[in-house]
Amino acid sequence: MLKVAIIGATGYTGRELAGILARHPHVQPTYLTSESFAGQRLSDVYPQFRSVVDVTLEKPDMDKVAECDFIFSALPHGLSVDTVPQLVSTGKKVVDLSGDFRLKDGGLYADWYGYEHNQPQLLANSVYGLPEVNRQQIKKADLVANPGCYPTSVLLALKPLLAEGVVDPQDIIVDAKSGVSGAGRSPKLPFHFPECTENFKAYKVAGHQHTPEIEQELAAVAKEQVLVTFTPHLVPMIRGILSTIYLRTSGKLSETEIWSLFEKHYGDEPFIRLLKAPALPETKFVSGSNFCDISLRLEERTGRLIVLSAIDNLMKGAASQAVQNMNLMMGWPEETGLK
Amino acid sequence: MLKVAIIGATGYTGRELAGILARHPHVQPTYLTSESFAGQRLSDVYPQFRSVVDVTLEKPDMDKVAECDFIFSALPHGLSVDTVPQLVSTGKKVVDLSGDFRLKDGGLYADWYGYEHNQPQLLANSVYGLPEVNRQQIKKADLVANPGCYPTSVLLALKPLLAEGVVDPQDIIVDAKSGVSGAGRSPKLPFHFPECTENFKAYKVAGHQHTPEIEQELAAVAKEQVLVTFTPHLVPMIRGILSTIYLRTSGKLSETEIWSLFEKHYGDEPFIRLLKAPALPETKFVSGSNFCDISLRLEERTGRLIVLSAIDNLMKGAASQAVQNMNLMMGWPEETGLK
Amino acid sequence: MLKVAIIGATGYTGRELAGILARHPHVQPTYLTSESFAGQRLSDVYPQFRSVVDVTLEKPDMDKVAECDFIFSALPHGLSVDTVPQLVSTGKKVVDLSGDFRLKDGGLYADWYGYEHNQPQLLANSVYGLPEVNRQQIKKADLVANPGCYPTSVLLALKPLLAEGVVDPQDIIVDAKSGVSGAGRSPKLPFHFPECTENFKAYKVAGHQHTPEIEQELAAVAKEQVLVTFTPHLVPMIRGILSTIYLRTSGKLSETEIWSLFEKHYGDEPFIRLLKAPALPETKFVSGSNFCDISLRLEERTGRLIVLSAIDNLMKGAASQAVQNMNLMMGWPEETGLK
Amino acid sequence: MLKVAIIGATGYTGRELAGILARHPHVQPTYLTSESFAGQRLSDVYPQFRSVVDVTLEKPDMDKVAECDFIFSALPHGLSVDTVPQLVSTGKKVVDLSGDFRLKDGGLYADWYGYEHNQPQLLANSVYGLPEVNRQQIKKADLVANPGCYPTSVLLALKPLLAEGVVDPQDIIVDAKSGVSGAGRSPKLPFHFPECTENFKAYKVAGHQHTPEIEQELAAVAKEQVLVTFTPHLVPMIRGILSTIYLRTSGKLSETEIWSLFEKHYGDEPFIRLLKAPALPETKFVSGSNFCDISLRLEERTGRLIVLSAIDNLMKGAASQAVQNMNLMMGWPEETGLK
Repeated sequence: MLKVAIIGATGYTGRELAGILARHPHVQPTYLTSESFAGQRLSDVYPQFRSVVDVTLEKPDMDKVAECDFIFSALPHGLSVDTVPQLVSTGKKVVDLSGDFRLKDGGLYADWYGYEHNQPQLLANSVYGLPEVNRQQIKKADLVANPGCYPTSVLLALKPLLAEGVVDPQDIIVDAKSGVSGAGRSPKLPFHFPECTENFKAYKVAGHQHTPEIEQELAAVAKEQVLVTFTPHLVPMIRGILSTIYLRTSGKLSETEIWSLFEKHYGDEPFIRLLKAPALPETKFVSGSNFCDISLRLEERTGRLIVLSAIDNLMKGAASQAVQNMNLMMGWPEETGLK
Repeated sequence: MLKVAIIGATGYTGRELAGILARHPHVQPTYLTSESFAGQRLSDVYPQFRSVVDVTLEKPDMDKVAECDFIFSALPHGLSVDTVPQLVSTGKKVVDLSGDFRLKDGGLYADWYGYEHNQPQLLANSVYGLPEVNRQQIKKADLVANPGCYPTSVLLALKPLLAEGVVDPQDIIVDAKSGVSGAGRSPKLPFHFPECTENFKAYKVAGHQHTPEIEQELAAVAKEQVLVTFTPHLVPMIRGILSTIYLRTSGKLSETEIWSLFEKHYGDEPFIRLLKAPALPETKFVSGSNFCDISLRLEERTGRLIVLSAIDNLMKGAASQAVQNMNLMMGWPEETGLK
Repeated sequence: MLKVAIIGATGYTGRELAGILARHPHVQPTYLTSESFAGQRLSDVYPQFRSVVDVTLEKPDMDKVAECDFIFSALPHGLSVDTVPQLVSTGKKVVDLSGDFRLKDGGLYADWYGYEHNQPQLLANSVYGLPEVNRQQIKKADLVANPGCYPTSVLLALKPLLAEGVVDPQDIIVDAKSGVSGAGRSPKLPFHFPECTENFKAYKVAGHQHTPEIEQELAAVAKEQVLVTFTPHLVPMIRGILSTIYLRTSGKLSETEIWSLFEKHYGDEPFIRLLKAPALPETKFVSGSNFCDISLRLEERTGRLIVLSAIDNLMKGAASQAVQNMNLMMGWPEETGLK
Repeated sequence: MLKVAIIGATGYTGRELAGILARHPHVQPTYLTSESFAGQRLSDVYPQFRSVVDVTLEKPDMDKVAECDFIFSALPHGLSVDTVPQLVSTGKKVVDLSGDFRLKDGGLYADWYGYEHNQPQLLANSVYGLPEVNRQQIKKADLVANPGCYPTSVLLALKPLLAEGVVDPQDIIVDAKSGVSGAGRSPKLPFHFPECTENFKAYKVAGHQHTPEIEQELAAVAKEQVLVTFTPHLVPMIRGILSTIYLRTSGKLSETEIWSLFEKHYGDEPFIRLLKAPALPETKFVSGSNFCDISLRLEERTGRLIVLSAIDNLMKGAASQAVQNMNLMMGWPEETGLK
């Protein structure tokens, strides 16, 4: 059993990671760090782990990190940028779950994340960890930037269409909806139960930091500039993302022909499920799993293509995708510990 | 106190109506009908009404209806089309809350509602009951077709823009989200608590019956054909609709100039609240009220205009709007009993 | 219209109070204070109040308080004890919604509330504001201690039984369940949506500060010592309390005879509804109202009496009961503004 | 891999069973029956099973059942009583998840379940499948009656106390709260989302069919008659049961001494977790697991003992406990496939 470190193990993403790794046949969660809860066991912070994962949390110590065989960093963005260089310098492979190593143009961090990025070399070397797009590079990577939750749902929904050049890359609208766990575990008024339940709203309209990440990765697939309007919404549920995406096609393809593009690209993908009409994705169907469910409708009246995708934001949108990346980086079968 | 009849009083819309009318200073809910619960009191069906509205429900009898001074019909669509002609023939003013008298082109009913409409004359005479658009006609109407919940949220959000001709009427996307009460009170699997809570999904993609209603009424405002892609979603909450609407402008107007169009059209409207940035609408803010909250963002990166509106689907989207229409039809101040 | 002050207007109780008072025919919410939000309008803090209650919040100033005709204090316990004496010294009538003036034995505050009470005189003079028990004293009171939410649900359920001496006062178990708004508006981890929804738990088992309040007031009714086991639970819903109460009777009374005691005591009460079998109280039935719904079952197998009561914790358990008390103190009909 | 049959695979219990068995190393869910959905795949009924459990559902056929190595019956009570005899006659071991073979006194079925039981022999032969109490008999059983969800939570909480004779067996109050999945998957008004969410209530007060099951099994442990007041409540959440249990002790034992009785009985139990103060059970901590979490408080003021236990009603309260029983019956390690 290889030893795995989780830096920042007590957020929701760290918790999911610990749970998945505890069931993984080749590794065990060995070294878990927390600034706030050091000295307590993970099962004190999350009592569901009692007699399942009872590892004691520690303040991060790079010597101890270096004794592990693989490292996950689950720190918030803005903190990862300072810590990940130290993790990488241990010589062990690293998956970073924050947004700090996803944008290739470091200058974007000032605008979208509010800080100056000072690690251009690592930014250049990191691999964007979406297996369905970058599988081969991930296998060889030392640092994988695990994709954001919203971008995962959007990129998987659009890859076949942009790779094949059948939709207008300048006319893409993503209306996305997420459960509340996406906002993390720190108590804040908008996520206080009486404020949050029985409520629905959009937030960060025309300004969410996942926008440039989506555009960058879609452009890499399309091999041309892509422009996206992205609107996130908050759903009164714990987990799940549904993205409803509006596109313009050339008008020459039928719905059946569009489906065949998806089958061409995703026919062998273990974690993508294509739902033909009348089926539609629902977040409950992917809850707790690494699946991404995708469906689509070509609206004849308007000529618009509507693609819908659902993931579990904490799983395929974070922790289980990180493990999928680890499997690739370690040369294990991609589905190990994920089904 | 005038006597008011509610035909179909035990659905969620009928229940809301009864509650509002019980607080209205000029009327009282007098004659309440129900096929399923006749013989019981409304407060047996909805115990919150005990010692508030204890009227006994009756099977509908047109002679008794005719003894009332005003009639609301809250039957499901497909049933109203048969009953409303009888109600109108009593000579009393009628507000019908179903979709059966909203579409001016009767032929659309076969496609979108699944039945042949056989009342062309009433269809021609009915007035679409959106006070912010049709206030003067409503005052004189004998039969008002109360707008659908989704259409109300969309039409109020778009009226100033289409009336002023500043957005492309062929490029409108409405991504709408509704609480579960919109599906009515009949128990069905998709609305069974364990299926419905902790879940989010789209439904009737590219096929919801409110689409032609939205296009018809927007066209009436725009004075040209309008084409809308409309996607409804189900939110795990009881009440509320949020519509996120994506538009193309000519590119010449600033966000401030667009707001001034809204102020021009809505400056005196008692039930429309304009939320300037950074505020955004939330369904909780309009819950239980007749308000429609509207906000917007002009996205410079893409040139797209995003308009968001929130209503309570059972109130401004149904019952309280029906009372607003009654107030107009009876010559009372429009806000009577609604604030 | 009399002027009313709310000290601490931005908690959930203050918000409910503002809403009720805005609809009250004899008063208007005039002077609203907040330490945290001074300078903003109440409708900035609670946007549902836009164009309904737009009063600007101020830091508390006793001169301005004194210009009002009636004062509600909605501060947290531990703060009220310092502020209420100043409020009372204005010479205006005061309703305090905290627990700081409810316990007649000031020594209990150290044990149950964690502070030393230094206002024995006000404690002696304050009247416990449960109208169904203390109506006459409330009418003459200068300072009313508005009852706690749990105690309201328990005292109303038990008053007839203890007043008539038909249950064992030493063998009372109260298993109570409350919505999350009872914990207030400050964001804390246990009330963070992803922690709180889809979860159920007990808290403060054998140690909740409402225990001595319940025992004190039941003893006043019973005219002998009362001993209560009280266990509160947290329900993943916004509002509502259901108390399930287990009692021992002498065994001589039938269920019908027990009901007749309730009718004797509550026959004329405007806000108590007695639900005969097979009906049972549900929190939804009292949501948003000042009602307390009560039902009971005599279990023949065990000889135990089970009484169930439901209230809205923010209404009859706080704000609307405070207004009921104001109505009594001002000599207005008790139901004014509450139905 | 042994072949397993699930009779009635499309209820919530059947669904959970299928999921657990799909992960079990020694068996596979092979033959799944459904009256309503025969011809569809399980993954059509529960799309989360797409590419996980795609078995096609069939109408039950005893010849095909007989080809399996082990049988679970997940039919509703009242139907199992007719089907289980046929299942047993195949000669294969059977776990029945209904209530139809739990009560040793067949005469009780008329009163509590509303039908006349006609299988006295099977009733006599069946073993009550609570491993923590009946482990040895379960290993040898041909027919195991899997315990009810509420009884599981109560029996595990009370076994050490009644086995040791330290509480009054005639003075036991169980106030239990369950998530909505306990009511099954058939849509009914009380479980319709808008009725059920934001609501809390008791039901079947003094009349729930789990009462005699609890009393029977507690009596078997106590070796004397036991009398229980049992009140179930409905919590607006999908899964989980919390039981709050009120007892009288002799007054001689300290809280520490009581805990040592629990450790004596449960020290080696793999699925029981004892939570010392200040910890308390929460349903979220056991969600999706086979654990039962137990805590207790001795209330000095009243001399009462309060025991709290939490389980997942669909897991330890149904499906995973059934698999725990299968493991015992097949001679496999008890935790196989359950951790």
